[in-house]
This record gives sequence, structure tokens and C-alpha cells, in this order.
Amino acid sequence: MNGAQGLIRTLADAGVTVCFTNPGTSEMHFVAALDTVPEMRAVLGLFEGVVTGAADGYGRMADVPAATLLHLGPGLGNGLANLHNARRAHTPVVNIVGDHATYHKQYDAPLESDIDAMAGTVSQWVRRSMKPDEVGQDAADAVAAAFGPPGGVATLILPADASWGDGGSVGTVAPRRASAADRPVDDIAAVLRSGEAAVLLLGGDAVREPGLRAASRVAAATNAKLFCETFPARLARGAGRPPIERLGYLAEFTAAQLAGARHLIVAGAKAPVSFFAYPGKPSDLVPDDCSVWSIPPEHLEALADVVANGTNPVVQPASRPDRPTGVVNGETVAAALGALLPEGAIVVDEANTSGLWASGATVGAPAHDWLTLTGGAIGQGLPTATGAAVACPDRPVISLEADGSAMYTLQSLWTQVREGLDVTTVIFNNRSYAILNMELSRVGAEAAGPKALSMLDLSNPDLDFVSLAKGMGVDAVQATTAEDFTAAFERALAEPGPHLIDALLS
Amino acid sequence: MNGAQGLIRTLADAGVTVCFTNPGTSEMHFVAALDTVPEMRAVLGLFEGVVTGAADGYGRMADVPAATLLHLGPGLGNGLANLHNARRAHTPVVNIVGDHATYHKQYDAPLESDIDAMAGTVSQWVRRSMKPDEVGQDAADAVAAAFGPPGGVATLILPADASWGDGGSVGTVAPRRASAADRPVDDIAAVLRSGEAAVLLLGGDAVREPGLRAASRVAAATNAKLFCETFPARLARGAGRPPIERLGYLAEFTAAQLAGARHLIVAGAKAPVSFFAYPGKPSDLVPDDCSVWSIPPEHLEALADVVANGTNPVVQPASRPDRPTGVVNGETVAAALGALLPEGAIVVDEANTSGLWASGATVGAPAHDWLTLTGGAIGQGLPTATGAAVACPDRPVISLEADGSAMYTLQSLWTQVREGLDVTTVIFNNRSYAILNMELSRVGAEAAGPKALSMLDLSNPDLDFVSLAKGMGVDAVQATTAEDFTAAFERALAEPGPHLIDALLS
Repeated sequence: MNGAQGLIRTLADAGVTVCFTNPGTSEMHFVAALDTVPEMRAVLGLFEGVVTGAADGYGRMADVPAATLLHLGPGLGNGLANLHNARRAHTPVVNIVGDHATYHKQYDAPLESDIDAMAGTVSQWVRRSMKPDEVGQDAADAVAAAFGPPGGVATLILPADASWGDGGSVGTVAPRRASAADRPVDDIAAVLRSGEAAVLLLGGDAVREPGLRAASRVAAATNAKLFCETFPARLARGAGRPPIERLGYLAEFTAAQLAGARHLIVAGAKAPVSFFAYPGKPSDLVPDDCSVWSIPPEHLEALADVVANGTNPVVQPASRPDRPTGVVNGETVAAALGALLPEGAIVVDEANTSGLWASGATVGAPAHDWLTLTGGAIGQGLPTATGAAVACPDRPVISLEADGSAMYTLQSLWTQVREGLDVTTVIFNNRSYAILNMELSRVGAEAAGPKALSMLDLSNPDLDFVSLAKGMGVDAVQATTAEDFTAAFERALAEPGPHLIDALLS
Repeated sequence: MNGAQGLIRTLADAGVTVCFTNPGTSEMHFVAALDTVPEMRAVLGLFEGVVTGAADGYGRMADVPAATLLHLGPGLGNGLANLHNARRAHTPVVNIVGDHATYHKQYDAPLESDIDAMAGTVSQWVRRSMKPDEVGQDAADAVAAAFGPPGGVATLILPADASWGDGGSVGTVAPRRASAADRPVDDIAAVLRSGEAAVLLLGGDAVREPGLRAASRVAAATNAKLFCETFPARLARGAGRPPIERLGYLAEFTAAQLAGARHLIVAGAKAPVSFFAYPGKPSDLVPDDCSVWSIPPEHLEALADVVANGTNPVVQPASRPDRPTGVVNGETVAAALGALLPEGAIVVDEANTSGLWASGATVGAPAHDWLTLTGGAIGQGLPTATGAAVACPDRPVISLEADGSAMYTLQSLWTQVREGLDVTTVIFNNRSYAILNMELSRVGAEAAGPKALSMLDLSNPDLDFVSLAKGMGVDAVQATTAEDFTAAFERALAEPGPHLIDALLS
């Protein structure tokens, strides 16, 4: 058994059975070892941003890490943005980065770079395996570190000679630790009973169904307001589940939502800050006279039993909008989603400005999960949808994607075809970085001239997403009326495999 | 004048008049300031790997840095691989990375990450501007650092408030320093006159025409063998110029080229090392009993005047292969290139295994420049071709591109259309990561099973590059015979603007 074989056997024994990869020469022994471990599935991406985003989507839905396999510093660099999003989502990922053989590094060969420094920017755990007989245990430790808590990216740097050398062995994963947080249930209960205005802000694991039900009971019994963080990793929603309002992306909206609160109780979330800084506007969005309290998500039910004994959660009634007619725009696309969204759907939302209406139109649709852009690094949607579909082959995946963001990691479509994934991609095609038009004025840079405006413009030339998708083998159509869009969406949901609809927004 | 205006004015005054960018919110004041400096041209890329690769191509051809403008850590991450290649090419690049406002960083907003650590992995100079009145001089220092010597990536991290705040000023660029190396001409001359076998290895600036002519005179007068580094940033070649053989990519070829040498004299190059490590094979490719000597490229002419007074350089006679017939493969595509390559062409070569014959078939073509993948980070070719075409609008650019590498940064094609660039892209479409099939056996991993082999296979689904190119507005055709390829190539050269030929290799 060489190091690579010990590594993959360790991963599979620990339940890590999918490896998203774009390998190179220094990873060839890992690749050769894939066939020695039948449980390990290898999924090829044409670009590392696809690989790491897919691992993020997989981990969010499977609650078990996927492994990645990347090629030295440049491969890690290409995957860094979606590892950043995974870091912010607290997604467990075992991020394996191949490196030159240990004795080769001194020669500063062309691909040599400081992988450790780069990995540190996205990882909560970084280790470099130095010998074949250490790789298995290092991998086991990486799995444990990825699980956390909190979950996150664990990077294992794998020199080629640690991979190819004999003496590989299988490592043992340490038992998962409980959250280190204290159990402040009685303190929080006292705050809620004080009669002072309180807000309960949920994120992370607290916005899965159990957390939402407990928090809803608390809110119903105490009149605390209930919100979800702006960009949740995986939000359970739809008919029969407690609805929850997300904090606004724009700081002034968040300020209005939190106005008057004297207590902010966070569970699985951070106290809110402005996404960006703006001249003359505050960064910290917690009201001045508001105290911040924290409770682990897994204690919400105990809290509910204390302050809301006998109170039921408020759940969303089933309701769907009518099938839309007329022009294609953010509202009519959202209506079509709401009218047709299937039970158990996974919605990956990187529609940015154009997706403003999608959340509201689907609130009463059958139960589904909603995955968002946690770290603000665009190019996350298509890869994450890909990984989510690998994790949940029996659930339809809907990928809501802005045109500008789509062009970051469009190669994802190829992997969707290769793996036969049931993903329906909707391109919100407004031919601009629309969010930047808004931001350009918000930062106070009003006097924009033609050169500035052209930097936000995606026409000249127009992008033909149907042609792009067909180039990677995806069944694709363009929709220019709401009726056409709805029919195309219905067909895409009914047929297996990947589809793309280029929604040409009016 | 705000900080951003002072910055752009400083750049333009220093001759940095092109900014390749994919900006975000924290860069909006920079974007707004573009119109205040008429000399500054802004070129939008749909992905940061396009932006940084274009800056590399621009710098290699213009010998003046382009600026980049990237969006925080994730934007830098996406651009890191091509900055790695620029670092290895010693290309001057002023790499500007926007960041959160200084006072906002403490809040760990979603896009916060350690930009400084990330930038350090590719930069020879990193600075963070802290105040609007410092930005101009910081930018001037960045320009000086990018020029070197040696040339390289100078990263300026630009907080949003340093950009938007008043008090901007114009910085002054320090005079360019001469190379710090001593003038060892007499020592080198003595080595060459010793009668012991010597090799002259050129790279960097030494493989422009003046260095080649001087080195050719030295070789002709002394019987020293003459080689070029394996992956030169910009190699002058073609009829009327001294021909030079490149060191082989595979270590065993390099070993054969250097066999028997007692002295290795490097000018603008490093002593050769194996690109990767392989079990049981050496990393250091300098023969055991060979001494290594170094001479600055700018001293080659003085050396020639000492040891080769009156000797003329050996120059390549003009010759072209016949137009090819039959199947499309690496050899026939190369013959078409050789038959038709126009005077003054810039060839960007990321054809990898398929491009093996291209160099030989064009050696006697009219004078041209050849740009290679300096750092081994694939996805370099299309962006570098884009930047080279911006730098040299009157010269035809030929982009030789492997299918696997093309899919890394294919978005470059859109920028080529938008900017009306005269680039002809040839996709060497063999539907595999062919180099990895070779490397898989070379690293000793012979027992590859079906899962391993599928990681190197780019069919299932096949990539349709014509459809992909048309999706971004590029005139594209597929060629399945040598005659068709040659005709398509001839037409692409005759017509302005970008073209793509998908050469479906037999």
C-alpha cells in the first residue's frame, strides 16, 4: 500500500466517498490509486473553481465532506474563491493539494509556490504530509477537522513522494466533538422573558428544519422577532415549515429590520455587519443599545421547551403563484419557479439582483432547501449546484444564476452532463453586472463616465448562453416570453439530466 | 482629487495606460475615476484569470506593465494562476487589488480574507495603501518594483477608503535601476577559451534578437553549444534571426542535451531542473562535473566582442513547409502554421503535447515572437494572447491552445471580440489531457484502472469549441482535414478580428 492508497482508503472508511478533482502530474499516484478503493467516486471538473464549488455544494447537502484533489499552488489558486465561500458556509471539505516531492522543492521548479500560505487564507486546518506512513492519519485528522465544529475547509498538502512511497496505512478519525459553547439556555430564557424587544437571528445549522421549528416556537411564545442571516448555507423552507425572513443585503434594510431591538440572540450566525463599507454609513449593524447573546443551534429546542412549552411553531401554508404571462423579467421568472417548484427541490441561488423576487414567490411551494452565496465570491452557483446534485441524486436541483456570475465557472455544465445530474440552470440574462450599477452610485461615485459604465456592461458582444451550453452538451433554450420560460422550465423539470434556460430579461 | 484619481493619473504619467479589470463594489471609485484620465484604457475580462493573463501578455510584448484591478481576496485568487505564470516570466505587472475600507476590516465581513498572504505567493513587492494621499506614491513605487530588475508582479492593495477619500496626489516613479550583477565578461571569456565543453543557456531578455545575435556569435567562435530555456517568456525567432534549440521538457532529453558539458553559462535563465520529480530520477539537471556561470543578458554583446570579434551570428534561412494535405493532426496543423505564418506574428503557445511539431515547422517562417507557458499553470494561452494583441494592435496574434487548457479561461474570447483584437485561436482538440496520460506512466503509476483513466479523458461529453466560441461572438469553424484547416487558417489571418479554428485531431 502506498501513501495515496492509504489516503483514499482512510477517506472511504470515514465516509468520504466522493472526490472532485482536476489533477496534474504530481497527483498521478493519487489518480492511479482511485481504482484500488471501489467506494471512492471520482468526479472530474474542467477547472478547479468547479471542483471546489462542487465540494461546497456536496458538503452542504450530504453533511459529510467531499474530498478535492488539486494541482499545486496554481490549482489551489483557481479553486480559492469557492473555498472561500465554503469557509463562510462552514461546509466540511477535505481539500487535498498535491505538491512536488519533498526533495524537489529546493529546486524552485516552475510550478513551485507557497501553497501553505495560500491554503491558510481559506482553511481552518492546514497540514503537510511528509511521509507515506503519515498520510493516512493526516487524512483522518483532516476529516475530523473538516467536521469541526465548526465545519470548514481542512487542507492536506500532499507531496508526490508521500503519495507514491510505500508504507501507506489507514488512519483513524477522532470522534466528533460536541460544540464547545456553554449551555446558556436559562440566561437566554431570562432575556426573552424580560419584556424588552428581542431579535432571534438564525444561521448555519439553526436554519435546518429542527432549528427553525424550535425558534418559531420561541418567537411565537415571546414575541421575539425571528430573522435568518442574509446568506445562509442551506435554508429549509416551503410549505409546512416555519417561514423566516432573511436580513437584507443592504445595510439600511438590515437597520430597519433590527430597529428597536434591545437584545440580539444569535444561533449559528454572527452579529450582522455591512457587506461592504460605504462612505458615511455604519459597518456594525447591531443597534447602539442592543446586547448580543449567543446560543448554539443544538440548544434551541431546549430553549423552546423552557420559554415556549406547549406552543407550536408557526408554519407556512401551501400556496403557489399563477403561471406567469407576458414579458420575461425577474418577477415572471420567479412566478414560474413558485408555480412549478417540485417537492424536495434544492435551489442554488446566485441570481443576485435579478433573483430579488424568487424567494417570495416560492415561500409556499413544497418543502425545499435554498443554498446561497455565503462568501460573496461569485462563480459559486453552477459548481455548488453540481455538487449538490452529486450528493442528492434523487432530488431536483434548480440553479438560479446571474449572467455575469455564470461566466466565472460555466465549465460546471460539462460535469453535469458527464455525471448525468438532474440540474436545471436558469440564466438571468440582463447583459450587465447590474449589482455594480447599483453599487457604483451607493459608494458615492455618481459621476460615472462612459469608460466606467462600460466596465459594468456585458453586452458588446452579447453572450449566447444557449450556444455556450450546447458547446458542453447541455440541452438549452432561450426564453423571451414568460409563457415560453414556464413551458421550458416545466419540460426541464420533467426530463432527467441537465438543462439550461437562457431567460432574456426585459 | 481622490485617492483613485491620483492613482490612475500616476499610472498614466508612468506610461501604464492599460488596465485589465473585473471590478466589484470595493473598486467602484477606481472605476469612476477612469474617465478622469483620458490616457487610461480599461479592458474588461469576464473572469480574473483572463485579466491577469492578459496583463502578462501585455507586459511581455509592451515591455511596460499593464495594471490589473481585482476584487478583494477572491478576485485575486481567481487571478493567481496567471500571476504565477507572470512571476515566472518576469513580466512587469502592477497588480491592484481592492479591499474593504480600512475601518471595515475588523468586522470580518463575508468577503474579508488575508489578501496580503495570498498576494505574497506571486508578488515580488506587496504594499497596502492606507491613506488617499499615499496612494499615488505607492502606485509609483509599484511601477518601479514591477520594472525591477528583475521584472515581476508588484501588488498594491487598495482599501476602498484610500480610494474614495480626498487628498489624492500624483506619485513619482524612481529611475530604473541597472541590473545589480557584476560584469564577469572576462571570467566568462576565459571559461569559453579553456577548450572545455561549454553550454550557453539563454532565457528572459537574452532571447530577444540582440541577445540571440550576440550569443550566436559567441557559439560560432568558441564551439559552445547554445540553448534556450524550456519555457521562454518571449523568444525572437524565424528567418534572419539566430535559431536556438530549447531545452527539453522531459528531464532525460535535457540530460542528453547537456551531456558532456563542463561549463554551463546562463544568461537570463536559471540552471535547469526537472519540471516535476519522478521516482528514481534526478531533479537537478546540471551534469555532475559541470560548473555553472552566470552573465547578465545585457553583457552578452560585450562578451561577443571579446571572444568573437569579427564573427557573424548564424542566422536562420527562410524556408516554409508545403501546405499540408490529409488528416488533421499535430504535424499537419504545424505545417499549415509554417506555410502561412505572417511576418511579425506573435505566437502564444499553450498547445502542450499537440504542439510538439509547431516550433520546428515555423523555424524558417518570417520573423516572429513565441510566447510560452512559463509557470506551468494552464489556462495561460488565451488570456496572454488577448493581452499581447492589446499591446501590439498591428501584429497578428496566433494562439495555439490545447483543449484542456482552453477550458480554464475560455472567457478570453469575449474580450477579444469586445476589443476587436486580431487573434486567431487554434484549438488542438484531442479530447483528452494527453500530457497526463504520458505523465501517469512516467511517474511509475502504470496500473491505471478505468476510474483513473477517466480523469484524463475529455470526451463524454465532447466539447464543441465552435459552439462555445460562437456563444461569445467569435467567428469559429471546425476543421477535420488538413486542407480545411489550412484554408480556415488562411482566411482567419486575412480577416481582422478574432477567429477560432477547432482542429479535431485524428
